[in-house]
Order: sequence, then structure tokens, then C-alpha cells
Amino acid sequence: MRIFVLPKDFKGSTHHRVTGKDAHYLSRVLRLKEGDSFTGRDVKGSLWNLTLESISKSNCTLTCEPAETEPLALTDALPAFKGPFPEIHLYQAICKGKKMDQIIRQATELGVKRIIPVSSAYCVADFSGKEQEKTTRYQTIVKEALQQSGSPVVTEIASPLSIGQVAQDWAARGTALVFHQVETGKQESLSSILHDSQDSPVALLVGAEGGFSNQEVSLLIEQGFHPVLLKTNILRAETAAIAAVAIVLHLVIDNV
Amino acid sequence: MRIFVLPKDFKGSTHHRVTGKDAHYLSRVLRLKEGDSFTGRDVKGSLWNLTLESISKSNCTLTCEPAETEPLALTDALPAFKGPFPEIHLYQAICKGKKMDQIIRQATELGVKRIIPVSSAYCVADFSGKEQEKTTRYQTIVKEALQQSGSPVVTEIASPLSIGQVAQDWAARGTALVFHQVETGKQESLSSILHDSQDSPVALLVGAEGGFSNQEVSLLIEQGFHPVLLKTNILRAETAAIAAVAIVLHLVIDNV
Repeated sequence: MRIFVLPKDFKGSTHHRVTGKDAHYLSRVLRLKEGDSFTGRDVKGSLWNLTLESISKSNCTLTCEPAETEPLALTDALPAFKGPFPEIHLYQAICKGKKMDQIIRQATELGVKRIIPVSSAYCVADFSGKEQEKTTRYQTIVKEALQQSGSPVVTEIASPLSIGQVAQDWAARGTALVFHQVETGKQESLSSILHDSQDSPVALLVGAEGGFSNQEVSLLIEQGFHPVLLKTNILRAETAAIAAVAIVLHLVIDNV
Repeated sequence: MRIFVLPKDFKGSTHHRVTGKDAHYLSRVLRLKEGDSFTGRDVKGSLWNLTLESISKSNCTLTCEPAETEPLALTDALPAFKGPFPEIHLYQAICKGKKMDQIIRQATELGVKRIIPVSSAYCVADFSGKEQEKTTRYQTIVKEALQQSGSPVVTEIASPLSIGQVAQDWAARGTALVFHQVETGKQESLSSILHDSQDSPVALLVGAEGGFSNQEVSLLIEQGFHPVLLKTNILRAETAAIAAVAIVLHLVIDNV
């Protein structure tokens, strides 16, 4: 564990009782003992110095003290980039089970702020009736990835949308990109599109296998999305998503 | 199948007999019939128009005709980037089983020319005594990924090296990068390092979990490698490798 993700019910108190899976994780998986100290991050992204005060059969009590700076004693000592991280929103067309899991895990590691599952014409997988179950599953994946990577960006999983709802959800917060494999004629370079994006959020819309339909891409362009044709082979959805996020992150941070 | 990867024993004859797994793949998995036509690519990267002439219990005979241009009738109709692809050599510190498989699959999709497994100080996994078995396994993964992605770059798997042998193997063919999480003082931007790399090969050396030791990084810098600290969270090895390849490919192609 690089960092412990504090449960949502933690509101900044000096003592906090951890139950269920979290308590099991601390006492059984990590085998921490009473008196052990470690670092936590709350849902808002703030750091806390935590000490395991007591362990009982089904819960652990922590003493919590706000940490002023980045902790010196992370359990793993690699230096990490401290930011600033651009605010990336990944609108990801829904892929089949394991692919979607992998995208969510890797996007969280990379520091994506919000992941929004999107249903589009070429999606094979379908969430209908399982939205809550899927969201809960993805939140678990995010939490594990945050604990492992120590990412300071607390990734959120949003409720699934249809592709027609994306522009409204995005509400023109900043630059929006749709990655596609369709020749649209219009084609700017990604670095010029992102040139002034370091201070505002960026939306990425990435397709499932098969990409987006021409009609979907045309509509999104009308709604202000920039079409981006990555100069690569045809990638599987999970490779395309991570390549797109990595390239955008690099270009935005490098432009600072 | 986007494209059929012709076996190594195919030397450009007008008829070719396919046996074993390849024959099984064509006749049983794809269920092609006698007379069906499809596109193949030989180990040198050239395209062939292939027709299934006959199917027997254990082999298939193909008629083979050189294809002048990119085939019109790929089984999947998405337009793909046709290149040019920069020649990327990925020196990848050996990771545990599934991670290494995933890196090889995704690097092949992205169009990496050569993947060289490297043993370094922080590698947990070890190939010793299993080099041949592992190489065969990786070649199978590469072949599947080539067939699925239709990548025109026929990825090679090289024999494993120790990190001390990397510089000699690379032989200063072009720009070489070592991705690390060590503060080295010296730090150029990746786009300036790659500025003139579109016509020469690029080497990427990417670590396993834990990265490289300070000593390894220092030696590589002495040997002419540019140290690159990606401005991201600490990534798992499989995420780091794909992020590094995607970013380098984008920067080199975008500089053209």
C-alpha cells in the first residue's frame, strides 16, 4: 500500500472507526499492528497521518491528524510526480467486462479525474439494469488503483450516459476530443488543439471496438468536439483508451 | 482476422502448404471454405492476396499472389493509419507473467518493431533456463496481435539480455531513452530529445515494478541514454510501458 484511501464516511474527525473490508485490509492483509502509522487520503484528496489505535474482531479505530505536506514515509519510497495534474474526464464507450476493468484501473493510475461510461452505436456490451452493480464494481477498482499508485487525483466514476447526453454532461467546460478512425477531412494536430488547455478540464471520448459511427462523430463535431485520428494501427479499445490518456496528459503537462 | 500472418517457411512461392495450428486456425476457427480469398502478410511485411485452394484434415493449400497495394477487402473495414511508423525498439525489464504478456500484446498493436526482454536489479521475475520457452510464448502472442491489429510492422521478439548488455545490443542506432523515477538533475523534455528522430530508430528502456537502480540509470546515461522522468503518478509496469510507447510514437510521428 502506498496510501490508504479513507472511507467516504470519514469527515475529518480526530478518531475514525473503520469497518468491513477496510478493517480486514488493514489488519489481515497488511497485518498492521496497534500503534502502526501510515498515510491516508480522504475523498477530497487531502492527506492524513493515521495511527492504528485499536483493532477488534470486526473493526479498527484510527487516530487522524491532518498531514501538512506530502508524507516522507510512504511505504514505497519512489519519488513521484507531484503535479499539477490536468483535469481529465474520460468518456469511455462501454467495453466488455475485463477490458472496461483494465481501462478504469489504468486511467485511475494515470490520474484521470472522472470516468463516465458511455453507450454508443457500436457498443457490444450493455449495462442496462445493472448500472448500480457496475458502478460499485468500478468504484472498488478505482479504490485499489488509488491505494497502489498513490495518485493524488481521486478518480470518480459517474453514472453511465448515452452518447447523445455527453455534450450536455460536459457543458463546454474546456477542450473536448473525440478519438475515432473516421476520415473527417478536418484534422488539427493534437498538440495545437491542447495548446491552451493546462488550466481547464479536458474531455476525451474514446470508442469501444469498432469506434464510433460517422453519424455520432458528425454530431459530436457539431457540438464542439475536436475529432482526433491517432496515427497508429487500429487498437483494441483498452489500448486506445490508455494511449489516448497518456498522450493527452503528456501534451498538456509538457505545454505548461 | 484483419490479416493472416504467413508462416516463416513461406518464401514467396505461388502455392504454399499451411500445417498445424495455422491450418486449424483457417479451417476450423475462421471456418474459411475452399475458394475463399483473404489477405496475408509475410515476415518481411509484404502483402499477399491468398486463396484457399484446398483443405485436408491436417493442412491447407494456399495460392499466393503478391498484392500491389493495401488490400481493399480486409475483413474489417476501419481505415487505419498507413505509416510511416518510426522504428521503435522496446527494451522491457522482465515483469511477472501476465504483465509481460500484456505489454507484448499492446506494444505489438502499437507497432513496436522489436521487443527485447531485459533482466535488471529490481526484476522479480526471472527467465533463467526458460529463455526458449518464453520466447516461443511471446512469439505466439505477437502473431495473434498482428493478425488482430493488421499492424504493418512485423514485431520481433529478441533473446533476453542483462541490462549491462543493452547498450552494446543497441549499438547507438539512434536516440535511446531510459524511463525512470530517479531524480538525475539532467532532464530534457521528451519532445526536444525526439525532435530529429523521425528517420532513425528509437530505443525505449522501461523498468519493471520498482524501476531501475540509481547505478543502472547512471551507467545508461554514461552510455548515451537520455533519462526521461514521465510526469505521471507511479505506474505499474504494464501501464508505464504502454504510456511510454504511445507518447514516443505520437511525438515522433507528429514531428514528421
